Amino acid sequence: MSEAAPQFDAAGFRKALGSFATGVTIITSRDGAGAPVGLTVNSFNSVSLSPPLVLWSLAETSNSLSIFRAATHWAVHVLATDQEALSGRFARRGEDKFAGVEVEAGVGDVPLLRGCSARFQCRTAFQYQGGDHVIFVGEVLAFDRAETAPLVFHAGRYAHATRREASDSAPRNAWLEGSFNEGFLGYLLGRGHLQFFARVRPLLAEEKLSDEEFYLLSTLTLKQRLENDEIEKGLQGISDESRGAALDALHSRGLVQVDATGACQLTPTGSACALRLISAAKAVESQIIDQLGAGEAAALKSLLNRLIHVLDPKVEALWSE
Amino acid sequence: MSEAAPQFDAAGFRKALGSFATGVTIITSRDGAGAPVGLTVNSFNSVSLSPPLVLWSLAETSNSLSIFRAATHWAVHVLATDQEALSGRFARRGEDKFAGVEVEAGVGDVPLLRGCSARFQCRTAFQYQGGDHVIFVGEVLAFDRAETAPLVFHAGRYAHATRREASDSAPRNAWLEGSFNEGFLGYLLGRGHLQFFARVRPLLAEEKLSDEEFYLLSTLTLKQRLENDEIEKGLQGISDESRGAALDALHSRGLVQVDATGACQLTPTGSACALRLISAAKAVESQIIDQLGAGEAAALKSLLNRLIHVLDPKVEALWSE
Repeated sequence: MSEAAPQFDAAGFRKALGSFATGVTIITSRDGAGAPVGLTVNSFNSVSLSPPLVLWSLAETSNSLSIFRAATHWAVHVLATDQEALSGRFARRGEDKFAGVEVEAGVGDVPLLRGCSARFQCRTAFQYQGGDHVIFVGEVLAFDRAETAPLVFHAGRYAHATRREASDSAPRNAWLEGSFNEGFLGYLLGRGHLQFFARVRPLLAEEKLSDEEFYLLSTLTLKQRLENDEIEKGLQGISDESRGAALDALHSRGLVQVDATGACQLTPTGSACALRLISAAKAVESQIIDQLGAGEAAALKSLLNRLIHVLDPKVEALWSE
Repeated sequence: MSEAAPQFDAAGFRKALGSFATGVTIITSRDGAGAPVGLTVNSFNSVSLSPPLVLWSLAETSNSLSIFRAATHWAVHVLATDQEALSGRFARRGEDKFAGVEVEAGVGDVPLLRGCSARFQCRTAFQYQGGDHVIFVGEVLAFDRAETAPLVFHAGRYAHATRREASDSAPRNAWLEGSFNEGFLGYLLGRGHLQFFARVRPLLAEEKLSDEEFYLLSTLTLKQRLENDEIEKGLQGISDESRGAALDALHSRGLVQVDATGACQLTPTGSACALRLISAAKAVESQIIDQLGAGEAAALKSLLNRLIHVLDPKVEALWSE
């Protein structure tokens, strides 16, 4: 087998490999002097169930190659969705990667990280040379697992993985062709919003706020002082009359103050009212997130943020300050 | 190296391995008689960039083992998000997997599938024995790639992978602690809905429909005849008065007929009006999906459906008929 032909597009090849989504792992061990070592790796894979074998590969140019070549034991940590920062830290060179990281001692005194989706403690079984990488195959001596959403890598960046329902790709039945059913994004947004809102509405009743007054109040929590056009943008989809009426109502109740230019801000009473609503609404939210799953909720929020950005590319101006 | 100790939990090990998310591939080749063969495999991985090498592994118990052991060439197809059915077909035994599937002839006459995220055409470089599997390492002779969202497998089921934004895990700045910002699901739902709706509203004006009348009309497209309590459920989050007023308005305009029990259905005029709105709204939707990406949109819809189910577990009764 020869080196790749000169016309082989190495950058394109790397990009094509990136089309294959993977989880993200950190492989840890100890060097000859007993110091902990660790690397972020996405070339992990299972090999055999009986005996239990897994593999990963490491570039020959890696600083850590000689350490892993000599190591009798190493551990694979499959990272959870909230471990992106750890992934980044172990992907960089030269840093003291373990500084401030809590570890446990595993088989062969291998340092074990916490909070992962799964961990595999291995004894080196084979090493194979494969081009510019070495393939390490390990026998799994011990493992553990937690029920957490995974960190995923795809196309050169991190990704959320969310469960796919059989119904996602099933054809839609509706008596009226192309009806507004669960395949229509506008319908889902409306229904999701209104149902979520139905849980929050009892809180508004306690505060004697209408829906529009609540929308306005919540928009005013985004920034200390909002210009008239920012309010308009924040309440896009609500008519001018309703917005005006809501503003008048909040103003006359002393919850909002308006200056000569039409810019608004919450009064201390308004802030207090908003804070009561925020904590109550967040309690509703956390109930829902518990049922949906933290990973799914994070992905949903990310996608909604992106949708909002697509619908109005200037929206971030309101949030970034 | 011995077999796993008898107390080794094989089912648990398999489950722990499933914590590592992967893409899904189909590996194809030809048997000695020239018939096409193919398998769904998620043990694919890159090995080396120069020379370009990839690997995958196959159980010793596989019917196809002898074919791949003898094959000089094979191709790896990284599946796209819309190829779940193909994945299922090539994962089952005994079926004529290629029936009705369009293929091209690749290097070594290997059958190549279409519509994939990436394809790698390989010459067998090495085969390694690893426990109960054989590891195949191939030299990549040719590859191609398309810009599509991937099919992902995690925890024993298919998943959506969606891009992760740096801001997803960034701390939120807000002047009022815990404010209703882009971290709050209720806010995102409301904002997404209202902004989406702002694009649809001009269509409603043409049909002289209020927001609530539109919600009611669209709910009535779900099922040919809706009982009163189904309408109430479908319009959850809208007050009884608004719902009643919308129903009266649609009824008096001859768009909806109501029977003695309070059950409603669209009249032919109502259906025609709904169909006009549906096609116009779907045009708005497809613009947005183009910008968001098809894979992201599919994941968003799936998550919203799940959210709606969490908010009201009985909701599917309305859609399943």
